[in-house]
Amino acid sequence: MNHSTSLPNHFELLATDGPARTGRLTTPHGLVRTPAFMPVGTAGAMKGVHWREVREAGSDIVLGNTYHLMLRPGAERIAALGGLQRFTGWNGPMLTDSGGFQVMSLSDLRKLSEKAVTFRSHIDGAKVELSPERSIEVQLLLGSDIAMQLDECVRLPAEAADIERAMQLSLRWAERSKRAFAQAQPGYMLFGIVQGGDVPALRQASARGLVEIGFHGYAIGGLAVGEPQAVMLATIEQTLPALPVDRPHYLMGVGTPEDILEAVARGVDMFDCVMPTRNGRHGVAFTRFGQINLRNARHADDPRPLDEESPWPSTRTYARAYLHHLVKSGETLGAMLLSEINIAYYQELMLGMRDAITNGAFEEFRAQTRAGWARGDLDPR
Amino acid sequence: MNHSTSLPNHFELLATDGPARTGRLTTPHGLVRTPAFMPVGTAGAMKGVHWREVREAGSDIVLGNTYHLMLRPGAERIAALGGLQRFTGWNGPMLTDSGGFQVMSLSDLRKLSEKAVTFRSHIDGAKVELSPERSIEVQLLLGSDIAMQLDECVRLPAEAADIERAMQLSLRWAERSKRAFAQAQPGYMLFGIVQGGDVPALRQASARGLVEIGFHGYAIGGLAVGEPQAVMLATIEQTLPALPVDRPHYLMGVGTPEDILEAVARGVDMFDCVMPTRNGRHGVAFTRFGQINLRNARHADDPRPLDEESPWPSTRTYARAYLHHLVKSGETLGAMLLSEINIAYYQELMLGMRDAITNGAFEEFRAQTRAGWARGDLDPR
Repeated sequence: MNHSTSLPNHFELLATDGPARTGRLTTPHGLVRTPAFMPVGTAGAMKGVHWREVREAGSDIVLGNTYHLMLRPGAERIAALGGLQRFTGWNGPMLTDSGGFQVMSLSDLRKLSEKAVTFRSHIDGAKVELSPERSIEVQLLLGSDIAMQLDECVRLPAEAADIERAMQLSLRWAERSKRAFAQAQPGYMLFGIVQGGDVPALRQASARGLVEIGFHGYAIGGLAVGEPQAVMLATIEQTLPALPVDRPHYLMGVGTPEDILEAVARGVDMFDCVMPTRNGRHGVAFTRFGQINLRNARHADDPRPLDEESPWPSTRTYARAYLHHLVKSGETLGAMLLSEINIAYYQELMLGMRDAITNGAFEEFRAQTRAGWARGDLDPR
Repeated sequence: MNHSTSLPNHFELLATDGPARTGRLTTPHGLVRTPAFMPVGTAGAMKGVHWREVREAGSDIVLGNTYHLMLRPGAERIAALGGLQRFTGWNGPMLTDSGGFQVMSLSDLRKLSEKAVTFRSHIDGAKVELSPERSIEVQLLLGSDIAMQLDECVRLPAEAADIERAMQLSLRWAERSKRAFAQAQPGYMLFGIVQGGDVPALRQASARGLVEIGFHGYAIGGLAVGEPQAVMLATIEQTLPALPVDRPHYLMGVGTPEDILEAVARGVDMFDCVMPTRNGRHGVAFTRFGQINLRNARHADDPRPLDEESPWPSTRTYARAYLHHLVKSGETLGAMLLSEINIAYYQELMLGMRDAITNGAFEEFRAQTRAGWARGDLDPR
C-alpha cells in the first residue's frame, strides 16, 4: 500500500555552491531565507529577548515547543486567543516540534505504546496522552506554519535493534501524522523526521520510508544529543542523498556555529538551538573570534566592545568591562544583552553563508570563518 | 561660623499651580523635566529593562546606588572606564545616593562614629569605611550629575532623642560633604538631605541648617520606610516651607503613583523608587486603572491589552492572557515587559502632571487620575 500523496512545494532553491544551498521557504506568516537559524522560544517566549530584537537580529522564523505549550497555557486556549503568533506578538513564521523529544527528556512516568506516549506533566503531574494525531491537532491549534511529525528519539549509544524499532515506529507515526495533517489549511507544512541513530542503513531506510509517504520537508532527528561532531556530520552525509533535493532539509537541535557551518556545507537548510540564549545566560558570547566567556577577569577593566566591527549595536558598543560586571553581579541585563548578541551573531553567520552561496564563494567564507574562530579572541589589553 | 557659599542654581521654575511646580534642571548630561521620576538602576543596570527602553519610556534621569557600585565594580574602575554614563551606556543624567542608606539596610557589622560608618561588604565581607568625604569622592569618580550628602537615616518609630542625634550628625556630615564637593567640575550638583524623622521641629531645624550651608538642591530623606502615607505627607508639608522655593525638592525613595501625585501636589519636584521594576518582577502592572496583578486567573483567557489607550506599545498590544502566561511560567520576558510597562506608566503620570501644571489644570488632573485608580480595572470578560 502506497500512502504517498504529493504535497505542494513551498521551497524554492535559489542557488547552490557545491552541496551548500540557499533558498526561500514561503509560509503563511512570511518568507524564510535559508540556510535559516530558528531561535528557540520554548514556552511562547524567547528567554531574555524581546520579539522585536529577535526580528531585528535577522531571524525570519522561530521555534516553539509543543510539549510546553500544550501543558501551559494549553493549545485550545492559544487557539481561542488567535493562535501562537497573535498570542505571543511574534507575528512571523513559527515551527513547532512534535512534543515527543521533551516527553522523553522532561516528563515522568512515560509509557510508550503503538498508539501513543503517555506521561505525567512536569508542571502539575497531570496524566497526558500524546499520539501522532493529538500532536498534529495541537500544532494546528497553535497555528504553527511548520508542524513536525511525532517520532521516537533513542538516546545514543543504543543497540541497533532498539534504534530500528524506534525508527520503524516513527515511520508508522509519520504516516498517521500525515493523515491527521489532511485537515490543515493550504500553505501550512508538515515535515517528516529521519531517525535511525548512527546506523547508516537505518537512516537510509527511514529516509526512503518518509519520502514514500511524502512531506513538505524533511528533518534529521536524533542528533545533537551528545554524540561527537564527526558522527553528526557522517549521519548528514549518509542521509541527505536519500532525501529530495527540492525540499527543505532541517537538522534538529543543532548547534554550535561550527556545527551549523559544517552542516550547511553538506546541504542542510534549517537549524534550531537553545545555545545562543542558554550560553548567553551563562555569560558566554558567540563572536567571529569564537566563544568569549565574559566571567573571565581579563575583561574586568577592558573598555573595548566584544567586536567593534559587528553590525549588531550591542556587540559593538557595550564595553567588555560592563558585560563582565553585569554577569558577575547576576544582573538580568547581562543575560538579556548576551542572548541578543548571540542570536545576532548566529543570524550574521547565516546571512554570511547565504550571501557566500549566492556568490559562489562558500568555501572561501567557510575557510575565513573557521580561521577567525581558530585565531580566537583579541589579545588582552 | 557660617559656612554658606552660594552655589549656582541649575534649576529653572517654569510654572506653578498652587504648591505644584514644573521646571527644568540642567545637568552636565542633559536636561531633566520636573516633576521627574528616576527609575533605579542599582548596580549600573535597570533590572530587566534595556537603557533604550528606559529612555523611550520618557525617563530623563536615573538613579544609581553608590553602595553597590563602590563595592562592585568599584568607583576607581568606573572612573578609569570613563564614568558611569559611559560605562553603562545610559549616557544621560544620573543621580547617585550617598551609600549611607544601603550601608544601614544591606551590610553587616556596621559601626557608626563621628568620622564615618564602617561596615562589611555584603558581597565579599571586606571591611569598608564610608565617610562623608569618601562618599563624595566616590560619587565624583562615578561622574554622577547629582551627588547626595552622606547622612544617617533612623528607622521609624524611634525616640526623639535618637532622631535628633542622627539629624545633627547628618548636618555635620552635610557640611563636610559640601567641603569635599568643592573639587567638583562646574555644572555638577550636590543635594543636602533633610532628616528629623516624624518630629516637625527637627525637620525644620534640619532644613534651616542645610539652607545655611547651601546646596544645589534639597532632599527629604528618612521617609518611604514603612510609615503611613499621612505621616509622609505631613512631613512634606512641614519641611518644604523651610526650603528655598527656587531650588529642586527631592523626596527620596517614593513611591506609589498615588504617593507621587500627592507629593507633587505639595511642591515636590523629584522622586526615585524601585517599585516599577520590583513590582513588575512580581507580576504587577501599574496602569491608569490602578495596580493589576497579572497572576490572577481572571486574565488567563483575556485577549485584551492592559490598556488599549496607553501611549506605550507593550501596554496597548500584549494580551493580558500572554502576560499572565509569562508570569505564571516564570519567563524572564514577563518581568521584562511588566518592568518597562511600569516605568512607562510612571513617566506617563509625570508627563501628565507637568502638562497639567503648565496649563493650570493640576487639580483637575489629580482628581481625574485618582478617580481612575478608584474605579479599578476593566470588568472581567
